[in-house]
Amino acid sequence: MQISELSDRSGLTVQTIKFYIRENLLPRGTPTGATRAEYDQGHLERLRLIRALREVGDLPVAAIRRILAAVEDEDVGLHELFGTTRDAVGPHVAASDDPHWRAARQDVDALVGELGWRVADRAPARDLLARAFVALRRLGYPVTLADLRPYVRAAAEVAEHEIARVDDEAPRARAVHAMLVSTVLYEQVLTALHRLAQEDASARRFAAAEAENRPA
Amino acid sequence: MQISELSDRSGLTVQTIKFYIRENLLPRGTPTGATRAEYDQGHLERLRLIRALREVGDLPVAAIRRILAAVEDEDVGLHELFGTTRDAVGPHVAASDDPHWRAARQDVDALVGELGWRVADRAPARDLLARAFVALRRLGYPVTLADLRPYVRAAAEVAEHEIARVDDEAPRARAVHAMLVSTVLYEQVLTALHRLAQEDASARRFAAAEAENRPA
Repeated sequence: MQISELSDRSGLTVQTIKFYIRENLLPRGTPTGATRAEYDQGHLERLRLIRALREVGDLPVAAIRRILAAVEDEDVGLHELFGTTRDAVGPHVAASDDPHWRAARQDVDALVGELGWRVADRAPARDLLARAFVALRRLGYPVTLADLRPYVRAAAEVAEHEIARVDDEAPRARAVHAMLVSTVLYEQVLTALHRLAQEDASARRFAAAEAENRPA
Repeated sequence: MQISELSDRSGLTVQTIKFYIRENLLPRGTPTGATRAEYDQGHLERLRLIRALREVGDLPVAAIRRILAAVEDEDVGLHELFGTTRDAVGPHVAASDDPHWRAARQDVDALVGELGWRVADRAPARDLLARAFVALRRLGYPVTLADLRPYVRAAAEVAEHEIARVDDEAPRARAVHAMLVSTVLYEQVLTALHRLAQEDASARRFAAAEAENRPA
């Protein structure tokens, strides 16, 4: 296809595509004349991934370049590739010297160990969880495994589903794209549904009683 | 208790407590001398709630005042009180005239109807979910009820647990405090656990195969 079709199908302007070529994020097309080049499906998949990494992952060009290099390198397996993407997306919480923070981070590591989850030590999500633990304790909520159990179960069910739906026969750029969407956009879906489900559960438990107590 | 003890137990400075009294967020203590006043458990519960609304909910004084008025007003039931708090916390997404946005918002309303969930039309979470639908579709992911099913189930399980653990015999300020923590902080816990669980599920499905494919 020509660059105009590539633009249509990727939803990116010709100018943006040319910028990505200059930045070495996208390989040049095959020349078919003095000013024309032919692009293929691989270019399209790659542009879609770049777009998602920018729009959904909010990543700078340098981080996108690292991820694309890993996509290109067939020696990098899908697990490592997903990890590289997840780590780049963050969010990253700065570790602190505060003793409460260190205790919380140790509790996170103990929890991950107890669950038997295979998670890298440097995974940003460990720090994210530690930060939430610190905030909960500061407000007087001790965090126990029993308190966490329903969240662990819900998170595991969703993650299991997301990893199971990965198509490992698809082009690697597309698999990374889909995983990014699960990590960021479906997480927003989960959060919004959580709020809606809370309101419904609250209505079922409390709203009926409230209506009864109202003066007629 | 005196103001110094109230300060210790709430984790707020005496200066901050005096500011809340001037702003009518906290009632004055009972005078016990020219410059002394006695504070009780109700003051402490209220201060803890104000602190959580500021630190966790990131709410301005005007919104906090509205929530405290609802806490005071015994005619406002717990369901309505939780709703007021949840609505104030947001986040709020501005509705748009864009046809994609309107279609997504209709899909959200249809989904809530299909699930039979009792959720107010003006709930900010409806717009949050619509925004995620728009982003998913822009990236080429149609959103179907089948895609959403695992997220719906996980969200409902967690919400059910959170509403069940509400102690409706506790002071109302404490119940609102606990619900705020579920809505905001435990949502962060859920998100962090989701990332950790993804990495674990990915390791189980892909990392073993990757190790086998590596040259020895």
